[in-house]
Amino acid sequence: MAVRVGVLGATGAVGQRLIQLLDPHPDFEIAALTASEASAGKTYRQAAKWRVDSPIPDAVADMTVTATDPDAVPDDIDMLFSSLPSSIGADVEPDFCEAGYVVSSNSSNGRMDDDIPLVIPEVNPDHLDLLEVQRDERGWDGAMVKNPNCSTITFVPTLAALTEYGLEKVHVSTLQAVSGAGYAGVSSMEIIDNAVPHIGGEEDKLETESRKLLGEFDGAELTHNGMHVAASCNRIPTIDGHLENVWVETEEDLPADAAAEAMREYPSLDLRSSPDPLIHVFEEPDRPQPRLDRTLGDGMAIAAGGLQKSPFGLQYNCLAHNTVRGAAGASVLNGELLLENGYI
Amino acid sequence: MAVRVGVLGATGAVGQRLIQLLDPHPDFEIAALTASEASAGKTYRQAAKWRVDSPIPDAVADMTVTATDPDAVPDDIDMLFSSLPSSIGADVEPDFCEAGYVVSSNSSNGRMDDDIPLVIPEVNPDHLDLLEVQRDERGWDGAMVKNPNCSTITFVPTLAALTEYGLEKVHVSTLQAVSGAGYAGVSSMEIIDNAVPHIGGEEDKLETESRKLLGEFDGAELTHNGMHVAASCNRIPTIDGHLENVWVETEEDLPADAAAEAMREYPSLDLRSSPDPLIHVFEEPDRPQPRLDRTLGDGMAIAAGGLQKSPFGLQYNCLAHNTVRGAAGASVLNGELLLENGYI
Amino acid sequence: MAVRVGVLGATGAVGQRLIQLLDPHPDFEIAALTASEASAGKTYRQAAKWRVDSPIPDAVADMTVTATDPDAVPDDIDMLFSSLPSSIGADVEPDFCEAGYVVSSNSSNGRMDDDIPLVIPEVNPDHLDLLEVQRDERGWDGAMVKNPNCSTITFVPTLAALTEYGLEKVHVSTLQAVSGAGYAGVSSMEIIDNAVPHIGGEEDKLETESRKLLGEFDGAELTHNGMHVAASCNRIPTIDGHLENVWVETEEDLPADAAAEAMREYPSLDLRSSPDPLIHVFEEPDRPQPRLDRTLGDGMAIAAGGLQKSPFGLQYNCLAHNTVRGAAGASVLNGELLLENGYI
Amino acid sequence: MAVRVGVLGATGAVGQRLIQLLDPHPDFEIAALTASEASAGKTYRQAAKWRVDSPIPDAVADMTVTATDPDAVPDDIDMLFSSLPSSIGADVEPDFCEAGYVVSSNSSNGRMDDDIPLVIPEVNPDHLDLLEVQRDERGWDGAMVKNPNCSTITFVPTLAALTEYGLEKVHVSTLQAVSGAGYAGVSSMEIIDNAVPHIGGEEDKLETESRKLLGEFDGAELTHNGMHVAASCNRIPTIDGHLENVWVETEEDLPADAAAEAMREYPSLDLRSSPDPLIHVFEEPDRPQPRLDRTLGDGMAIAAGGLQKSPFGLQYNCLAHNTVRGAAGASVLNGELLLENGYI
Repeated sequence: MAVRVGVLGATGAVGQRLIQLLDPHPDFEIAALTASEASAGKTYRQAAKWRVDSPIPDAVADMTVTATDPDAVPDDIDMLFSSLPSSIGADVEPDFCEAGYVVSSNSSNGRMDDDIPLVIPEVNPDHLDLLEVQRDERGWDGAMVKNPNCSTITFVPTLAALTEYGLEKVHVSTLQAVSGAGYAGVSSMEIIDNAVPHIGGEEDKLETESRKLLGEFDGAELTHNGMHVAASCNRIPTIDGHLENVWVETEEDLPADAAAEAMREYPSLDLRSSPDPLIHVFEEPDRPQPRLDRTLGDGMAIAAGGLQKSPFGLQYNCLAHNTVRGAAGASVLNGELLLENGYI
Repeated sequence: MAVRVGVLGATGAVGQRLIQLLDPHPDFEIAALTASEASAGKTYRQAAKWRVDSPIPDAVADMTVTATDPDAVPDDIDMLFSSLPSSIGADVEPDFCEAGYVVSSNSSNGRMDDDIPLVIPEVNPDHLDLLEVQRDERGWDGAMVKNPNCSTITFVPTLAALTEYGLEKVHVSTLQAVSGAGYAGVSSMEIIDNAVPHIGGEEDKLETESRKLLGEFDGAELTHNGMHVAASCNRIPTIDGHLENVWVETEEDLPADAAAEAMREYPSLDLRSSPDPLIHVFEEPDRPQPRLDRTLGDGMAIAAGGLQKSPFGLQYNCLAHNTVRGAAGASVLNGELLLENGYI
Repeated sequence: MAVRVGVLGATGAVGQRLIQLLDPHPDFEIAALTASEASAGKTYRQAAKWRVDSPIPDAVADMTVTATDPDAVPDDIDMLFSSLPSSIGADVEPDFCEAGYVVSSNSSNGRMDDDIPLVIPEVNPDHLDLLEVQRDERGWDGAMVKNPNCSTITFVPTLAALTEYGLEKVHVSTLQAVSGAGYAGVSSMEIIDNAVPHIGGEEDKLETESRKLLGEFDGAELTHNGMHVAASCNRIPTIDGHLENVWVETEEDLPADAAAEAMREYPSLDLRSSPDPLIHVFEEPDRPQPRLDRTLGDGMAIAAGGLQKSPFGLQYNCLAHNTVRGAAGASVLNGELLLENGYI
Repeated sequence: MAVRVGVLGATGAVGQRLIQLLDPHPDFEIAALTASEASAGKTYRQAAKWRVDSPIPDAVADMTVTATDPDAVPDDIDMLFSSLPSSIGADVEPDFCEAGYVVSSNSSNGRMDDDIPLVIPEVNPDHLDLLEVQRDERGWDGAMVKNPNCSTITFVPTLAALTEYGLEKVHVSTLQAVSGAGYAGVSSMEIIDNAVPHIGGEEDKLETESRKLLGEFDGAELTHNGMHVAASCNRIPTIDGHLENVWVETEEDLPADAAAEAMREYPSLDLRSSPDPLIHVFEEPDRPQPRLDRTLGDGMAIAAGGLQKSPFGLQYNCLAHNTVRGAAGASVLNGELLLENGYI
């Protein structure tokens, strides 16, 4: 029997992707949609300007949108997926947790809090147990789990495959798609025939979230990974798919072919949205490319390529679909992990 | 009185830019145009599919194109600007030098040869004296000077401004415009809504040319700079302007504001095509951007921005117009330097 | 049991789409791949630079490519799909027909020949019987059927839905995607931040093919439709999907809502690749759009929208996926029609 | 001595272009800048996010922005250039006229009013005398002149050159650049790899403004031209430059070469911003193109090409820079006409 779920912030770009992924999902049934006060009371079809490249699901089109408020959401909802703007998420997500809802959130607020698990299921599923600490400390009946930022998700699985070599220094340069900023985030006049070498707050997310994700959780406390990461972030004129250039320096010598093998063999999970393999490693030196490779594994795979020795260690490129693996799909996958682990 | 010059490979993308720059240039007068055998005998208007965004100059349109052969070029030409494909350049440029022509070349062949000066006038004008060694060794009446690759020119001036801090390790990620590959180089199906993380041979050029440019010439021998450079190159959907993310580690501590000041005060030259300032440093964190900033200093300035501490040293972005400062304009500027130094 | 088929010109852009569509097709089994002499003898993986956004099918990757010559193709092939360049198609397609092969061709050569059926199955399936005339006249054991040009296919089904109103004058302006010109057809320098108001020979195809498609076949002779069409063709920076602005003047008054209803109710066929409905009519005034709507009906539907009175009659927009419905899919669909009608 | 002028709505995209054009203009001196209440009191540098591809003029950067209110603008201003959003323009432009200011406005409000001259100086300069009627009727000390919409300006000069043949029916399909919608008007997610066949209200502007512009003014009343125009408008991924496909049916036979000659010889004016020739007619069938031809005549020329017989009359393409000739430059040119005719 499907779990009844709601989507917080259902009309935005990530909200639409969540609906696209949840509608056909056998384990979940969309039973609540929230948006801003201005949209409350409208049907979803009226409230959302649907822009995903598949038709709006019939089951959702005529649902009534409610305000983003625990009192407005039906009680028989078991899980919430949140794609709220972070300022709003910071305000209302705790209210939902306090009201007893389990929230799988894509919003950036709270990601670095000590008692909030920041999880990529194939990378650090054990961090989910931070929820015990969270419930102790916050007294919530519900729970809150976060997925990382889209640009973080893209490169962390490749690093996870290399941890046994002793990660020390990482440089990462990102070429990010416009959908990462939401529908109105990047004006066409800003980006056609152009690139913008700055995305507010993004570099810090890559540098800090990656260390939390690769950290060790001893059942009580989470120790962040000791590697250091230097990030430089760019917006480019692509619709979907973040491409990243990565240089890694490790304690032990790391030949390119050993790295490729470690990535290829890095295990995936048996969750419904987990792709197999998790990391697709290309031989062709000019791959991965956003338009060609972002839909690998239904948008949930990580693509890597161009592995080679650099003057200082290893160098490679990686890619993930930023609104699927990097946002909506990440939240859905965390929902599947919550379900698998009995939190629902 | 203007120096009579010729353009080798006049019909290509860089050849067209050379003509656009040389036609109004007070020191040079275009007196010869060469192209492939198939174009020889045609007027330039017939031979070239003119695609630069200013009309084809009248003085050039009706000139007859000759083959790229010393015998076909008039004797009273004093200097040649070469934008030949490198395989052809390797074949015929030495013939022109042997026949007594002074060649300022943008072609990549021979750039790393010990006795060929690779010059950015504002950075290493003294390397021009390698021409004495060259003439001794090769017995040429003419001479050959090269400018570096477009992606190398973009970041080397910013490094030159920082040499006193002791350059050690440099990481550079490039976001390169399609014009860098010539008119037919990048298909639209390859690059719209996409990025390609590979440009054949480009990373090596950044890594080796930069060390030669920042090397020391003692009058007899050139010692390459001891820094190490790791490059990762990407093609993105921009027309003109290469953007680069740079991380620098130096012997001495290098605060971002000191770096900005060093770049701003890095001296330009009194040559006609040298911009003043050479390096334009932006305060705005989201600059430089290709479409907005590639025409600074008539396309001859270097733009820098986003200077900040990284976990490992200094981090910043830089930009240059790849077919002006990075190719045709670089060759013209070397021509001006040759003229200034009495080689013509 | 699946029909064994071959693809002529298998390495090009349309050839790759053909393979993508034929590989999972239950009625067809790919058993031969041809390309230029230079590719003959290589595996398909070696010969083709695969650029479609799904992985190269395993069953095809290791097949050996042959020359495009009846002697090189196995005898037990029942049907050939041709995406040859038209100059080559004109040379070799008749040889295949003479050798007994049934050819469903996307190449433009011969499309306007009196005895070659030019067919969109949902529009003029009865024209297929021209094959009787063809065999009589040419003495072929095989047969040749053509699908129209991609830009023609986009608007003809919408006109077909309106024929009962008496088509008189049609103006059509096209906004065509770069994939219509093949992989190397449109350089990125030509089209980024640009549009090109000219596609060689395209306007004539729209004007003449449409009249043949909507003509009447009396079992012996085909009379072209008496309407007149004026076309203006533009290339724009989209990857896939041709968008067209259409104005129609009819004998009888044609209100926009009657036109919408006629399009919505225009019958599809019961062939495997025929979408249902054939024509998707949008209410939203800003649809159809290439990126959002080109995959309707797995890329085989026609999308229409913006139906309104113009000062002179009816005005609307239509869209189709140019390499699926407009090329590879059109040929596959003609193959299904040939099979259904016993020509295989 | 330069006329002191102000810019209403100075921080928007057209406002920035106005400043770029007015700053070096010898006849005008920028002496006032207005924007929304939120910007009032700030320096222009603080208030505007400057995005034009030349640096912000020094003379303007430190000027203080005022509210858009006659009381806030200095009295010694002689002329105002308005690029206000039309809803705001409708509110406040009449107040400025009543307060005695002469306003050259790009805003769409009031363009079709009987007593407001809608002027392209090279096309209908005599319509300026409507200002006498305007002052009589409205009792204004000031005056209001409008320039047409950017898409209208693009094709009307070419029609003006053909009026002697008796214009009857015109079809026009537009491929419009994103800058026409202002900086935030078109999201990148909306337009990359896409086209949108709808621009709200645009078709009506082309159909009605063109008839007013080509109408006859007898000194008292303006009779609109009797031709009929059917327009279809599309947004495409270009930054600047509207391209239009035009079909014209005329009373008298109009061969393509006669049309080309009429366009080439159509007279320009002796105003500072009027280009000579006004209409640049290309022989090459694939021109004009937005990126290559939008800067002809410093962005003030009209480019035409592809002239040929269509099945119904004449067919051609035309192009103009939408934010220069189509907006800011149009207003400046009207300002020059006002000055020339003694209205200042």
